[in-house]
Amino acid sequence: MTDDLRLTHLATTLPSTVPFVGPEAIERLSGTLFDARLGANESGFGPSPLAIKAMQDTAPDIWMYADPESYDLRNALASHHDIDPASIMVGEGIDGLLGLLVRLMVDEGDSVVTSAGAYPTFDYHVRGFGGTLHTVPYAGDSEDPARLIAKAKETDAKLIYIANPDNPMGTFHKAQEIERMIEAVPDGCLLILDEAYIELAPEDAAPAIAPNNPRVIRMRTFSKAYGMAGARVGYAVGHPDLVNAFNKVRNHFGMNRMSQAGALAALADEAYLGDVIARVQKSRDRIAAIALENRLCPIPSAANFVAIDCGQDGDFAKRVVTELGKRGVFVRMPFVAPQNRCIRVSCGPAAALTLFAVALPKALKSART
Amino acid sequence: MTDDLRLTHLATTLPSTVPFVGPEAIERLSGTLFDARLGANESGFGPSPLAIKAMQDTAPDIWMYADPESYDLRNALASHHDIDPASIMVGEGIDGLLGLLVRLMVDEGDSVVTSAGAYPTFDYHVRGFGGTLHTVPYAGDSEDPARLIAKAKETDAKLIYIANPDNPMGTFHKAQEIERMIEAVPDGCLLILDEAYIELAPEDAAPAIAPNNPRVIRMRTFSKAYGMAGARVGYAVGHPDLVNAFNKVRNHFGMNRMSQAGALAALADEAYLGDVIARVQKSRDRIAAIALENRLCPIPSAANFVAIDCGQDGDFAKRVVTELGKRGVFVRMPFVAPQNRCIRVSCGPAAALTLFAVALPKALKSART
Repeated sequence: MTDDLRLTHLATTLPSTVPFVGPEAIERLSGTLFDARLGANESGFGPSPLAIKAMQDTAPDIWMYADPESYDLRNALASHHDIDPASIMVGEGIDGLLGLLVRLMVDEGDSVVTSAGAYPTFDYHVRGFGGTLHTVPYAGDSEDPARLIAKAKETDAKLIYIANPDNPMGTFHKAQEIERMIEAVPDGCLLILDEAYIELAPEDAAPAIAPNNPRVIRMRTFSKAYGMAGARVGYAVGHPDLVNAFNKVRNHFGMNRMSQAGALAALADEAYLGDVIARVQKSRDRIAAIALENRLCPIPSAANFVAIDCGQDGDFAKRVVTELGKRGVFVRMPFVAPQNRCIRVSCGPAAALTLFAVALPKALKSART
Repeated sequence: MTDDLRLTHLATTLPSTVPFVGPEAIERLSGTLFDARLGANESGFGPSPLAIKAMQDTAPDIWMYADPESYDLRNALASHHDIDPASIMVGEGIDGLLGLLVRLMVDEGDSVVTSAGAYPTFDYHVRGFGGTLHTVPYAGDSEDPARLIAKAKETDAKLIYIANPDNPMGTFHKAQEIERMIEAVPDGCLLILDEAYIELAPEDAAPAIAPNNPRVIRMRTFSKAYGMAGARVGYAVGHPDLVNAFNKVRNHFGMNRMSQAGALAALADEAYLGDVIARVQKSRDRIAAIALENRLCPIPSAANFVAIDCGQDGDFAKRVVTELGKRGVFVRMPFVAPQNRCIRVSCGPAAALTLFAVALPKALKSART
């Protein structure tokens, strides 16, 4: 770093690393393109055709900034969830909203609690604002609400993060358990309930949405079940005072006009969403079957991916990921032991899963030698 | 604010106000739609048809996250400017990049220098990270490089902001003057040269791009001349060390996949850009003529808008803006005296300017009574 730059002290301490290297970057490094893109929990089933049409119809209007209030989308979401629009903040994906929330809440040295090996981008934001991360281990393959709460009390945490269903393991907690966790959130602490995959989970996974409790904020997205990851549309649901606080710091004109229109159309197309949910279920079953055929253990998933226990350590799973990549199949794996004994395979169309089915035994063989 | 929220001390001090109320919000408040959208310096001439097509073609692929490195776009920009891609950071519009830059550089209490009445969104970011804004007045209708530099020395500023051409007045400095300013930037200070409108300015307004100086970072955008405001694509050009520092804090998967494709196509369509530049010039002339017909004084503009001196104070100009709005014509005005004696009218297609020409005399008459 040139001496002329006077970055903040905090910024000088941060690495220039990224939470995830993109598949395009891996392709450029390897010089070959992936044939099956099953690593980023994107939805290869794509968005609703009505959402595609809405975005295409909006493209000529892209000379206009988007409505900074996302009024139409917020109102449609409010109607969808039968809540007040004042409880909804639309933003540039959950990633963007998490960053803003951490900025609002976390001063340098403030405590934040998450699970070891949970969402790296959340950790990135916490470190990026100087927060101190305290982690608790998973209980088996699930996040552990009781230990998260206990750690929050112990550290006087301002934020607790939990994803339901969980990423990268795909497990979920039932609504009653999440409700008990919310009840137990200590005074002065806020629970972030990341529900990125909730549409794909069993119906008893989501507590009723009643955003009157200032101790919980829920995050939802059009990136997963709705198949619009590249459009960057997420939303937070919470107490109106908390939701309004985003207006202090957010990039008011940051939303994409096509994406707003696409999300609005996607939300309205419930038949398509139902179809995707059914296809994801079939896809999960197929990934599990492929794992079992290879004598690996699939972990039951409530999301649009399946974590497959490769039966050895993280080094072995990493070799499997690498060997799959060499064979044109992009998958990822958890970052932290013991979850990193797994590879994580996203659901997708049958053709992509067939490529995975063909590549996996070869990749395992290479990884074992 | 509910007592349960433990926002940071800084966040509690910030207002929940917005730098700009969007035209859609004004329409909702008034209950009528604008017939001529001439207030946000958007380009009513629209983006290149090739850019529209590229975005439409990409819409079905929106299930994939965008390449977080914006590799193709950065390389095309590097080629366009004949510089190294390592000197270019692509982000979600200049607004997004300014926020990240302030975050990297400004701790609470750090000094930042700008002109009184320059870009409010920059001020919003500085306040949002706790920086202390020091302003100098415009020199006539232009920003004042010498006073900006002097104020930076006086306050040990970390950042100086200047836009060339300027918004909201539309004036510009010649390249030599900007180069002299860059030379004079004090040690430990960084000049932000916001060139959002540079494609529309005379050729002698832009210094050669040679991003080897760690004391200046230039901001460019696809929102203005390229007509893609709603796509959120901007880029910073600077010293590679500074550019790389954005990787410490940016939302790596924040770019929209359609927008990346659209910007790439827009950049390649130089004929269309040339056509827009010609149309903007004609449009500026027409706005100036309309002003003169109404015995108002147009300020010569190097951007895609014209500031019109209404000859009285800010209260009067505000009434003119309001009266134009009632007649379906959306324009804005500068926020700070004495620039706020003006209204600011964006360039646009002939039909929109005709609506402005019809509405202006009536609006002036109402504003005067």
